[in-house]
Amino acid sequence: MTTTEDVLKGKYPAKAHAKKVAGYIKSKGGDITGTLYLEGQKTRMIEDNDEPMPFRQRRYFYYLTGCALPDCYFTYDMKTEKSTLFIPPIDPDEVMWSGLPMTPEEALKAYDIDAVLPTTEVNAELTSSSTPKTTIYAIPNQVSDHITFLSYSAKDFELLKSAIEICRVVKTPYEIALIRHANAISTAAHTAVMRAVSTAANERDLEALFLKSCIERGARDQAYHSVVAAGTAAATLHYVRNDQPLAGKLNLLLDAGAEVACYASDITRTFPLSGAFSVESAAVYDVVLRMQKECIAMLRAGVRWDDVHAHAHRVAIAGLLRLGILKGVAEDIFAAGTSVAFFPHGLGHYLGMDTHDSGGNPDYADPDPMFRYLRVRGTLPAGSVITVEPGIYFCRFIIEPYLRDPKHKGFIDEGVLEKYWDVGGVRIEDNILITDSGYDNLTPTPKEVHEMEKIIRGEA
Amino acid sequence: MTTTEDVLKGKYPAKAHAKKVAGYIKSKGGDITGTLYLEGQKTRMIEDNDEPMPFRQRRYFYYLTGCALPDCYFTYDMKTEKSTLFIPPIDPDEVMWSGLPMTPEEALKAYDIDAVLPTTEVNAELTSSSTPKTTIYAIPNQVSDHITFLSYSAKDFELLKSAIEICRVVKTPYEIALIRHANAISTAAHTAVMRAVSTAANERDLEALFLKSCIERGARDQAYHSVVAAGTAAATLHYVRNDQPLAGKLNLLLDAGAEVACYASDITRTFPLSGAFSVESAAVYDVVLRMQKECIAMLRAGVRWDDVHAHAHRVAIAGLLRLGILKGVAEDIFAAGTSVAFFPHGLGHYLGMDTHDSGGNPDYADPDPMFRYLRVRGTLPAGSVITVEPGIYFCRFIIEPYLRDPKHKGFIDEGVLEKYWDVGGVRIEDNILITDSGYDNLTPTPKEVHEMEKIIRGEA
Repeated sequence: MTTTEDVLKGKYPAKAHAKKVAGYIKSKGGDITGTLYLEGQKTRMIEDNDEPMPFRQRRYFYYLTGCALPDCYFTYDMKTEKSTLFIPPIDPDEVMWSGLPMTPEEALKAYDIDAVLPTTEVNAELTSSSTPKTTIYAIPNQVSDHITFLSYSAKDFELLKSAIEICRVVKTPYEIALIRHANAISTAAHTAVMRAVSTAANERDLEALFLKSCIERGARDQAYHSVVAAGTAAATLHYVRNDQPLAGKLNLLLDAGAEVACYASDITRTFPLSGAFSVESAAVYDVVLRMQKECIAMLRAGVRWDDVHAHAHRVAIAGLLRLGILKGVAEDIFAAGTSVAFFPHGLGHYLGMDTHDSGGNPDYADPDPMFRYLRVRGTLPAGSVITVEPGIYFCRFIIEPYLRDPKHKGFIDEGVLEKYWDVGGVRIEDNILITDSGYDNLTPTPKEVHEMEKIIRGEA
Repeated sequence: MTTTEDVLKGKYPAKAHAKKVAGYIKSKGGDITGTLYLEGQKTRMIEDNDEPMPFRQRRYFYYLTGCALPDCYFTYDMKTEKSTLFIPPIDPDEVMWSGLPMTPEEALKAYDIDAVLPTTEVNAELTSSSTPKTTIYAIPNQVSDHITFLSYSAKDFELLKSAIEICRVVKTPYEIALIRHANAISTAAHTAVMRAVSTAANERDLEALFLKSCIERGARDQAYHSVVAAGTAAATLHYVRNDQPLAGKLNLLLDAGAEVACYASDITRTFPLSGAFSVESAAVYDVVLRMQKECIAMLRAGVRWDDVHAHAHRVAIAGLLRLGILKGVAEDIFAAGTSVAFFPHGLGHYLGMDTHDSGGNPDYADPDPMFRYLRVRGTLPAGSVITVEPGIYFCRFIIEPYLRDPKHKGFIDEGVLEKYWDVGGVRIEDNILITDSGYDNLTPTPKEVHEMEKIIRGEA
């Protein structure tokens, strides 16, 4: 069996990615003798300051190079399949402060690239007469002013961007290994937070511990801004303060994931601060875990994500009926869309170099609020990685309009609901690889109640 | 005695700052009936991504408002001394995801401002006829396209920026309390790293611990990218990798500081991984500590920073002569500038909202390499805060050209130098408040050898 470690010993498969993108362009009637042109992210300074901004490589560029250095360029000749990376030359003034930069020889060894040249050679390469210049493919607003495409008979600023976005949906084994590795680091960090939660004083203690646990395992960056929400703060979906005391609150919702070599993990767990869920919290958790498990069980290549999302709502409705928060006929509630009051966001999104990865075809103008925020629409291909993150929230801003709406209010029992506000919100999120025969859950973070409670109590 | 805590219980003195800036503008012959106009930083998205970039408030704006919210505006009527803050109005679609934003009433309570209006009122205020419109003062490239200054008879895009930059040099007690508070947090974090250094395995473990120690004390942001450099990496002044193993290395150079409410701390300590300096390390440390102490002792309002920097070089030369690394006559070595090979950077910089704070009047075109990188030139006023950060480094990229240069090579004993490469580099950096009678050291981080060694060994 090939392990994650074995896969990651090799190089990031930049050439396979370039070939795949070129293949897509050809399939769309593109020029098979064309050249792909990409620029990496530039060093940018903090405004009114002399320090550079934190560097984040452009994902289009990384996909075809595996190179996370700033200020680089890339060309790929579709006819000869030759890839060329351009890296910054040595700046003697800079060596004094920062040491030697990577040499072309080192870059050739580190990256899956045919040739490495200094960035001073980009225009020379673009205008050299060694090959016929036909179509240049580039990304709009990502071509520097000094770059010249004059030698090319045609310029295409559309196809390359969408080609990369679509190719990124189906991951190569190396990409899956990176996501799995990011999940392993995040799992260690989530578990460390569970261990600390009963003695910590403030949300920020837990965020600090999460970040520390990731950085000491080699993940310097987070895939996204963590949500570390105690008590009713968990009902605020985009809670970012992470600075409130834990005393007197029931549960912690922790949505946090490390980034590894430009690849994201995205994991949410909800657990009791005391080590034991309250009756209401346990009941809601049970519904959400059921939503997640049933949805994951539906996954395989070709499944329609809209159907999986709808199923999550049906499980939520069944669960909330059982608790008495909802009342009436399940199918009527579903048709009215009343469950959106408790589960207002989409079931999940593609995951890869971006946390909300490309290629999902969302329809944010959908008039149906149940599907408006669903970030993936249509069928899932084998090799895609998607988050499954159902939730149930008790958010006054969201629920109260439903309580006043004649279409919905008859389906909600306000008396029963009253007991649940303090639960805040529960979300459980895993990262799932879609396969031809089913799925592979890349997230080993504990989520069974007895597992989490044992860790919190220091018994595991 | 007024403690830091007492001072920080009050509001950030935005009106006093506005008045000071207006006073400066008047002193430069500005229009005493003019209006100051500032914009805060906008919410900006990560490129090709749906998450916002980490937010950093514009310092010009913060100085006159104390408000760290994104997407705000500010006006100050110099004649009536009325300050108005404009904050984003409620966006109902956003409340569902993020909860309620700050209300104008809350903002009025939180900030030292006369009036708070929604940002939809900025142009109405700028064009209202209630006051005569004379000169509007604004900062170039920090005025949004939709803003109109048409009502003003004159527009000045120069004076405001330099006025704020100069006013920022002399700190108010509140600003000093913030810097002191940031120093207290950083000191706890530096001490935590000292405690962990003998058992940690990698530089990143220590960076992780530093960040955790700051975040759990309420400092979510660092003032700058930390340098966590073990062994010879400490000779790379802008070392940022922070990911190398500690095994087999002598010392750690830790240059790291928390940011608190937009105010920086900037502290460097160098200490032995084992808990005991090697003979060579101790000797170099002794020279650097002497450089720092003698320079700090020179400080008081009116001292010329260039002279203090020159004195650091004289102490370095005396020390390196004692070690035998330098040879010859001290004054000849100083005149030749040979000590720049070991102490290539400036002695320090102003510290405030920026780590390298405004108003230093550096001359990066100075032909003398001893003074070229000095970020402050001229005399220091009372109330300024400056870092004192001498260092001695054994960096091959920097020293080797000196060994080949006839002007310098006779002053350096290569045989003795050979024993010192493994020391890497030593820097000691404190943040010093300049007073009329002397100075106040805002940095309580341990720096005496016996103190640091005790902490590392777990004896303190």
